[in-house]
Order: sequence, then structure tokens, then C-alpha cells
Amino acid sequence: MNAKTREDLIETAHALADAARAAILPHFRTRLLAENKLDGGFDPVTVADRAAERAMRDVLAVRRPMDAILGEEYGQTAGDSGLTWVLDPIDGTRGFMSGTPTWGVLIAVSDDTGPIFGIVDQPYIGERFVGGLGQASCTGPLGQTGLGTRQTATLDDAIIFSTFPEVGTPDEGAAFSRVSQACKLTRYGTDCYAYALIAVGQIDLVIEAGLHAYDIQAPIAVIEAAGGIVTNWTGGKVHMGGQVLAAANPDIHARALALLQAG
Amino acid sequence: MNAKTREDLIETAHALADAARAAILPHFRTRLLAENKLDGGFDPVTVADRAAERAMRDVLAVRRPMDAILGEEYGQTAGDSGLTWVLDPIDGTRGFMSGTPTWGVLIAVSDDTGPIFGIVDQPYIGERFVGGLGQASCTGPLGQTGLGTRQTATLDDAIIFSTFPEVGTPDEGAAFSRVSQACKLTRYGTDCYAYALIAVGQIDLVIEAGLHAYDIQAPIAVIEAAGGIVTNWTGGKVHMGGQVLAAANPDIHARALALLQAG
Repeated sequence: MNAKTREDLIETAHALADAARAAILPHFRTRLLAENKLDGGFDPVTVADRAAERAMRDVLAVRRPMDAILGEEYGQTAGDSGLTWVLDPIDGTRGFMSGTPTWGVLIAVSDDTGPIFGIVDQPYIGERFVGGLGQASCTGPLGQTGLGTRQTATLDDAIIFSTFPEVGTPDEGAAFSRVSQACKLTRYGTDCYAYALIAVGQIDLVIEAGLHAYDIQAPIAVIEAAGGIVTNWTGGKVHMGGQVLAAANPDIHARALALLQAG
Repeated sequence: MNAKTREDLIETAHALADAARAAILPHFRTRLLAENKLDGGFDPVTVADRAAERAMRDVLAVRRPMDAILGEEYGQTAGDSGLTWVLDPIDGTRGFMSGTPTWGVLIAVSDDTGPIFGIVDQPYIGERFVGGLGQASCTGPLGQTGLGTRQTATLDDAIIFSTFPEVGTPDEGAAFSRVSQACKLTRYGTDCYAYALIAVGQIDLVIEAGLHAYDIQAPIAVIEAAGGIVTNWTGGKVHMGGQVLAAANPDIHARALALLQAG
């Protein structure tokens, strides 16, 4: 990939994040009428979610019409460049509905090997985590800093996050608990923001199950750019979704992986 | 209390919050050496925690030397005005250590009936929730809004938060679970920010156990100013700490209280 294309992809990703922010923020902390996507489940799809994906697709139609798109709200759109934009306009809709500022806009661009660049954006805080194509930065209320993961080597020094205490199936929950119980501190409920906290060197592990490609591709790009590692629970590639183990470094990844597989 | 005293208390509280922000922010998202306050427990006391309480005490020594102080880090200081400043420089030290922006600075001023004014401040986001003495506002990244709680009447429409899935003792945890299981959505891990989310009308209930006076006085003032209600698990006053039930309105409070007491 030449420098001009790299630059165009990075600029486009920021333009997408800017468009999503503008579409979403008028709806945050207001009373929303949520629809239930799944019968009996609580999976609110907000006006903001759809408006943000439409806004991002409008940007791509102008700037990168040759690329494919995979979006959480509007599915797949074909392209012929070999690149795919993978978009989750609001990751953490439950957090969004609750007013918690730990949901995020997830934007990745991938080739056939997986994500090559990603952004995790938190519009309310005004915080943007960027990784890949030579970039590794966090820009937020206190300015810009570089990304870089922790070098924690043992689980008893590790901080682990997951969205829910009830991770996936009972077997998946038991596997999570084996790792969690070996760690110094477990925290819940931060949605995609937890992945960003690995990338800025604050925590060591995120373990989740049942993810989609659009939930994990941007975190993969950001964490890998920061020196971390993201795989599935057998150590394989996870950019198409499933059971996710994100870790600050290979040592702590290996220790968590061993416990996930010890059941 | 005359208007001049009211104004002085409000201005002093903001000066305390400003001083705490300045003391804390240089330490957030850096690598901190935490001490363990409790043998065997994980209760990090950071450099920031102590620096912030000292900074607030310095402000009070100049502006309100006649008032008593109860601080999380440095304990009680006597006064003779009948008013006490109740300070928790960093509520949610685990969140702080993890880089999550849901910890807060808690500032309340109380008389012998309990807190009459409070501030919940989130320095990283730059968000300040203020309630009491005629005030009820949230100032943050998107400007200033008024506070006001939800009118949710039934638990199956309610969103409930708690810091940990493991609330207090096994009996306390069972009581929490009875309420939680009746609610639409349960979220964890947001520390004092959850109380602010009741006050801005985003969630309905927070249930916790084992709190200290300095953990709860500022949330009480902010939530009551917004139209909510905060009691212990028998419906009594809770400003001295213990088991806390914070609710958006009296209806949802009564329903949660009945389940807490149903064991």
C-alpha cells in the first residue's frame, strides 16, 4: 500500500468518526425510544445508532466508493478494492441508554488478513483511540498521548474487564471465572472502552464471548498498535468475531489462555 | 441560613472541586504505586487521593475555618459552625487505577439533618453534578443542563446499577439480586457516577452496601435536588453510611425496598 492510500484511509477514518459524533451526540442523555431487535432480548437500537451508520456510509460513498462496507445496522455492501470498512456506530447500546460514557464508535478498515487500521471513539468525552498504519495515539480532554500496553507478567498483578459478569454460555462463564479469579481486580460494564484501556496501558485483559466482526476489528487494530495481542480462546485469529481474549502482552495472554482452556 | 451564607457555601464547594481536579488530573492515566490500606484487600490509596484532600482542606482553612471536616483520607477536624464538609477526594479508586472515567470527587456540606448541598465531580470528563441550596444542574462537555429524575413506576422498566456483582455479605447480595432480577437492565462498575446518572434522568436505581458517610452524602444531595430519594434498606436516613438504596422517584423506591426486605 502506498503512502497516499495510507493517508487517505487514515483521513477517511477520522472523517467517519467525526460524522458519527455529530450524528450521535444530539441523542445522548435524552430520553430515547428503543426498539427491541431480538424478541424477548434487550438490544436497543437507537435513532442515533442508525443515523450514525448512515452518516458514515455517506462519507464512504463520496471518499471511498470502491471499498466494501460491513455495518452493524445496515449489513454488507460490496466493493472491489480488497478493503472493507467495518463499522459499529454505537458499541455498547446498553451503556448508551444508561447515560454511561463508555460506549463507543468502532471504525476499522480491513484487508483479507484482518483489520489494518482502527479507531475507538468516545464522542461524549471527546476521546479518540487510533491504531494501525503507523499510528498509535489517544487524543482526549487532556491532549494527545501515545498508546502503549502494560508489561504485567502474572495474573495476580493483572486487571481484567468484561462487559457482563454472565459471559456467554455457562461453560464460557466458567472459563472466564477461572481467569478472573486469578486476577488482582475484575471490573464490569465498560463496553468497548475496556479495549481502549488496554491500549493506553491501564488494564491487562478483556475477555468476552459472542462478539461480531464489527465489535472487535477496531479494538484489534488499536490494541495491536499499542503492543498488545487479541485472539480467540484457542489462540487463533478473532477478527470475524466469537470468543475474544485481548491482552496487554504475550506473557499475560499465554497465562490467561491456559486458564481459559483448562476446563 | 441567609443568602450570603448559601452563596458562600456554593462558591466554596466549587472551589473545592476545582482544587481537587487540579490535584488529581496530573496523576490520572499514569502508572501509580498503590498502597494497600487493608491487609489482604485491594484498596489502593493513590498519591492523587491524598493530594486532593489536602488541597481541599487548604481551601477550607482559608474560606471556612469555622466548619468541621470529615475526609476519607485524613479523618475528622472539629468546627463550631454546626456545618461539616464531607469529602471523598477519589470515590472509586479501583476505577481510577483502571483508567475508567467513572470515579469522582465527592463534596458535601451537612448540618445535623444531613447533607444540604453536594457536588459529584468527574475531572477527566470535566463534568460536574450539583444539587441543593436551590441548585440542580449538570455542567459537562455539552454545556449545562438541569437535573431531573425518571418517572419509571415499575421495576420491569427500571435500569439498576451497582459497583460490584458481589454486593456486601451473601445476605446483602441475595437482597440485591431480588431487585436486580426484577429490573429490565443491570449494570456494574461505575462507582459514584451511577448516582449522577439517577440525577440526570438516565437510570432508576443504585443499590450498594457497606458505604461510609463520605461515599454517600454528596450523592444524596444531588439526587434529592433532582427529585429522587436515597435511604437505607429499611427506608431510613443513610447519610452516615451503610446499606444504600437510591431511587429516581418514590414509586420505584417503594418497589425496590419491598424486594430488599422480602428475604
